[in-house]
Amino acid sequence: MGKILVTGGAGCIGSDLALRIASTGAPVRVLDNLSSGRRSHLAPLRALPNVEIVEGDLLDAGLVSEAMQGVEFVHHLAANPDVKFQPGDPTDKDLQQNLIATYHVLEAMRQQGVGKIAFSSTSAVYGVSPVQPIPEDLAPMRPISLYGASKLACENLLSAFHHLFGIDCWIFRFANIVGPKVRKRGRTVLGDFLLRLTQDPTRLLILGNGQQHKSYLRNEECVDAMLYLIDRQRSGFLVANLGADDWISVNRIAELLVAALDLKDVRFEYTGGEGGWLGDVPRFRLDVSRVNALGWKAKLSSEEAIRKTIAELIADPGLFDPERD
Amino acid sequence: MGKILVTGGAGCIGSDLALRIASTGAPVRVLDNLSSGRRSHLAPLRALPNVEIVEGDLLDAGLVSEAMQGVEFVHHLAANPDVKFQPGDPTDKDLQQNLIATYHVLEAMRQQGVGKIAFSSTSAVYGVSPVQPIPEDLAPMRPISLYGASKLACENLLSAFHHLFGIDCWIFRFANIVGPKVRKRGRTVLGDFLLRLTQDPTRLLILGNGQQHKSYLRNEECVDAMLYLIDRQRSGFLVANLGADDWISVNRIAELLVAALDLKDVRFEYTGGEGGWLGDVPRFRLDVSRVNALGWKAKLSSEEAIRKTIAELIADPGLFDPERD
Repeated sequence: MGKILVTGGAGCIGSDLALRIASTGAPVRVLDNLSSGRRSHLAPLRALPNVEIVEGDLLDAGLVSEAMQGVEFVHHLAANPDVKFQPGDPTDKDLQQNLIATYHVLEAMRQQGVGKIAFSSTSAVYGVSPVQPIPEDLAPMRPISLYGASKLACENLLSAFHHLFGIDCWIFRFANIVGPKVRKRGRTVLGDFLLRLTQDPTRLLILGNGQQHKSYLRNEECVDAMLYLIDRQRSGFLVANLGADDWISVNRIAELLVAALDLKDVRFEYTGGEGGWLGDVPRFRLDVSRVNALGWKAKLSSEEAIRKTIAELIADPGLFDPERD
Repeated sequence: MGKILVTGGAGCIGSDLALRIASTGAPVRVLDNLSSGRRSHLAPLRALPNVEIVEGDLLDAGLVSEAMQGVEFVHHLAANPDVKFQPGDPTDKDLQQNLIATYHVLEAMRQQGVGKIAFSSTSAVYGVSPVQPIPEDLAPMRPISLYGASKLACENLLSAFHHLFGIDCWIFRFANIVGPKVRKRGRTVLGDFLLRLTQDPTRLLILGNGQQHKSYLRNEECVDAMLYLIDRQRSGFLVANLGADDWISVNRIAELLVAALDLKDVRFEYTGGEGGWLGDVPRFRLDVSRVNALGWKAKLSSEEAIRKTIAELIADPGLFDPERD
């Protein structure tokens, strides 16, 4: 039985996925450079005899080639997770960490005859869509962020490798994923809001105008969906939106959080503008009829996913402990 | 008045385009690494006082940055022109020469505030389409070649740079371009057939089954269309198919060539299979209603474009002169 390689296995989704696969007894190899993944996510994996952990960077083609040895299935989740572009950021971060890294994975697969890859893509590939909810076959697709463009470029490359070299591909376009492993450093709306309210519980600065509407999905539901769909359709080229079938506004998320923290009279302030940052897609809701037809449906709505995550985050006393990994 | 930068200006299309622009008196800078462009294409450009020629590679970001100085419009045609992937070829050639090169161009534009780029894309971005003729908004787009995937990835990157940094983009998805500058080395169907028939006029090996059907466009019509459309729509993000509105089969091209050469009893032999090579799209016809609506239409049909090119090639006594650049 070949190994299951999970790139980005120290990340929020990758570590849960690796644990789930390892719990079936399958041999798992986790590859992560720990640039955004956390050592603490790896701890439960290290305890398992059938999990091997490799620290390394996908931009090192030789290392990727080594990590591919004996592999039969690749879950490729490693990526620059930060969709935000801020002035001063390098403009080739996503190109390198998403696209070139993915090329190294695909090329190692081709050279070693590894035939199956599941790729974590994103709803950011769609850009600003006049069609809502957004079907997988939206046209035209016009990503507005370097992150979204690089992920769509990865999909294109997967398409070519599928046709040229017979590699089976599962491409999952995620809604915003939330869960208890959400990072505290402000990369997600909940992490951002919680940090701000911890620092000053009288006011909350909201990026954009707060009218942004987005779809959310719980981490464990995302992992469920991936494993279910790979099992349901065993080969070919599947592109699938993964998310709840509704959306929720940023203002509503702020209200839910403030209520859960039992804060009164919090003043909401806005940076203004439709999007929260350069390249933010202000509104998206995913058409999930394709995965519904395949038998998968999110159990929680976007609001339920947010509520559950808020409850877990608030219950975690160490969330903002600077000493914690 | 800023300069017009033409990357790939020693290529078949780029050199004609540069000449056309220079003939209006505009200052033109040509950038080419002469990997597939030819010195002979540059000769008429060198004779003009308003044309500057820079030999250099787009993979050299510093050189691209220098070449961008004082530029107000970029015609970006430089690319690996060979859509064929052959076993043994590096799989990252297109990723490097098309996508990374394009990134360097875009990043230099961003840094120096150059606001307009016309990009030469390709019908190969569509892959195998059940819809014929193929509209620009085909969905899904599934390139089947590394060339097509890399060009579509370039388009994605242009989309992000357009939205993030306000760069106006014209994306031209070319049909197969033919003209008197067609190379003799077998990269195009006419060059391939002519070379084979010169070597052995009794038989012709045809890649695939000969039933491939494709759209063609003459070089000078392609240049016309680009300049017309840039003038017609002065800003924004235009994606446009460029081609004749019909298609022609590979077998028909072979017949036309054999007849023009006045050869008798040529035996057609086939390598077999639907496509001519790994990643070949066997059938495509472009929907050109978008450019028609903007006021441009190819004057020649695909067959007329092929006929005219055959006549010119046959009339060129030095076509297969190994000494000729």
